[in-house]
Amino acid sequence: MVDVAPNRTATLAGVGVVGSSHELTLDARLLVIAEAVDQWLDAFKPDVLAIERVFAQTNLSTVMGVAQVSGVVMVAAARRGIPVAMHTPSEVKAAVTGNGRADKALVTAMVTRLLRLDEPPRPADAADALALAIAHAWRSGAAFSAGSESSTPAQQLWRAAETKSKVTKNKEKPGNAWH
Amino acid sequence: MVDVAPNRTATLAGVGVVGSSHELTLDARLLVIAEAVDQWLDAFKPDVLAIERVFAQTNLSTVMGVAQVSGVVMVAAARRGIPVAMHTPSEVKAAVTGNGRADKALVTAMVTRLLRLDEPPRPADAADALALAIAHAWRSGAAFSAGSESSTPAQQLWRAAETKSKVTKNKEKPGNAWH
Repeated sequence: MVDVAPNRTATLAGVGVVGSSHELTLDARLLVIAEAVDQWLDAFKPDVLAIERVFAQTNLSTVMGVAQVSGVVMVAAARRGIPVAMHTPSEVKAAVTGNGRADKALVTAMVTRLLRLDEPPRPADAADALALAIAHAWRSGAAFSAGSESSTPAQQLWRAAETKSKVTKNKEKPGNAWH
Repeated sequence: MVDVAPNRTATLAGVGVVGSSHELTLDARLLVIAEAVDQWLDAFKPDVLAIERVFAQTNLSTVMGVAQVSGVVMVAAARRGIPVAMHTPSEVKAAVTGNGRADKALVTAMVTRLLRLDEPPRPADAADALALAIAHAWRSGAAFSAGSESSTPAQQLWRAAETKSKVTKNKEKPGNAWH
């Protein structure tokens, strides 16, 4: 959860990683995640929820589980009238680092810097989630107000990175798995 | 929804097919399905819910959506303490027709006969769902009581079909998409 100001400054509101035991049945594991998401959405009441867009082509062994979880998360948001946005990993990496193929270490470093944190969010999945939230706010223009003019050199850098990401993004072909 | 007696006789309790408009966003479509499933589970309070086990390898273009829906349905059951069972399409076909590669027409015909219906359930998805429910009850042995001895010639036929299905089922390799 991040707050993103009109001048694009992002501030950490909270971050969590939900895990479930391998020993549970699949439905019980999904319920653990569903209940955690319910709690987060009720506690923070976010304006929008961003999730990673995953392609069936990418990783067959995990794509089913990821899709099941994404369905559960989308319904949790929809029940509360919270819009859902989807971005690909490379869109997120490009938005926060300027490079759609940035590695996890760079994404984590940039997220740490953008949120002015004393130490990197752990585990790496937490940094990924925060990068996704920041990227959504920036890409959607939600963080811009028309009269916003102040920007630090760092923010100008991020804007340049975002412009670059818009060039990058057309190279991806989302297919029709999500339609 | 089917009731299956200890002597394996299956009776239709209700059947429905939920659709959602292509014009809705994905989260709104999943919510339509989630709310319908909630209503069915609350209305019928089933002892168990069976869903089709889908393999990521089978149909890349639809597997993501199917997995999202299955996640939503599993959580709906888990929230109510209803156990979830999964069976592959060929397990279901084998259980109700004796042939794991039966076509939709044969599955529909057998479901119609097993449930003693005047006409076939429509659309074909409804017949598939009923076949899955019957197959689960039979395969799990939930419908058997130890002292059950009465069986009509038709029921003996189904038992023979099920035995055949048990031979068939080991040919399938579920992979690890669901783990």
